[in-house]
Amino acid sequence: MADNPMSNAISNTPQPPYNAVIFTSLRTPGDRGYAGTAARLAELAQAMPGFLGAESVRDEHGAGITVSYWQSEASMRHWLEQAEHATARQLGNSGWYEDFSVRVARVERAYGKERRD
Amino acid sequence: MADNPMSNAISNTPQPPYNAVIFTSLRTPGDRGYAGTAARLAELAQAMPGFLGAESVRDEHGAGITVSYWQSEASMRHWLEQAEHATARQLGNSGWYEDFSVRVARVERAYGKERRD
Repeated sequence: MADNPMSNAISNTPQPPYNAVIFTSLRTPGDRGYAGTAARLAELAQAMPGFLGAESVRDEHGAGITVSYWQSEASMRHWLEQAEHATARQLGNSGWYEDFSVRVARVERAYGKERRD
Repeated sequence: MADNPMSNAISNTPQPPYNAVIFTSLRTPGDRGYAGTAARLAELAQAMPGFLGAESVRDEHGAGITVSYWQSEASMRHWLEQAEHATARQLGNSGWYEDFSVRVARVERAYGKERRD
């Protein structure tokens, strides 16, 4: 999840199709409540209907990519509304991120080391 | 690009729709030719028709996410063939990755700090 170490690095998502939110960001220095909010967002996501998993990495330069996976367009949209509500002030004020991008996508095919699909 | 510092963290992709390859991985310890191959793959991607950009992060635990963006399904497929050809032995022998996942997706909407879209 967001900014947690990926103890289980790869989400064990079901067969596609499903939906994905690709969040790429570059953090500003300093925490200013970020870690706490990120942890709450991660908990919130996991509790939401249609949540399939998430993968998150941030490097020592503050560059991060978090991808969350959702069962349906509706569950993904619901999540986006919740996440935007929870982070609206911070994103709006640009306090946490030097830059960020949200991309909403439909996963059509997937395979892995074990050719899980 | 793959495992390079993201000096320009966020790819300045055009208006959706476009295609994306989400590659999540957990590296094994040691290089064994990985860095060189990753750099060559990054160069190869940038030279390919339809390449729109890429974002890549790897953390200190070896967890990484690289997302590359492609103008069309055809250009993305072409890239996947090239990348799989270039890494076939290593992926097959599991030399570099403890685990990995490739997800092929269609980006439908996007927005950023500047609401670029």
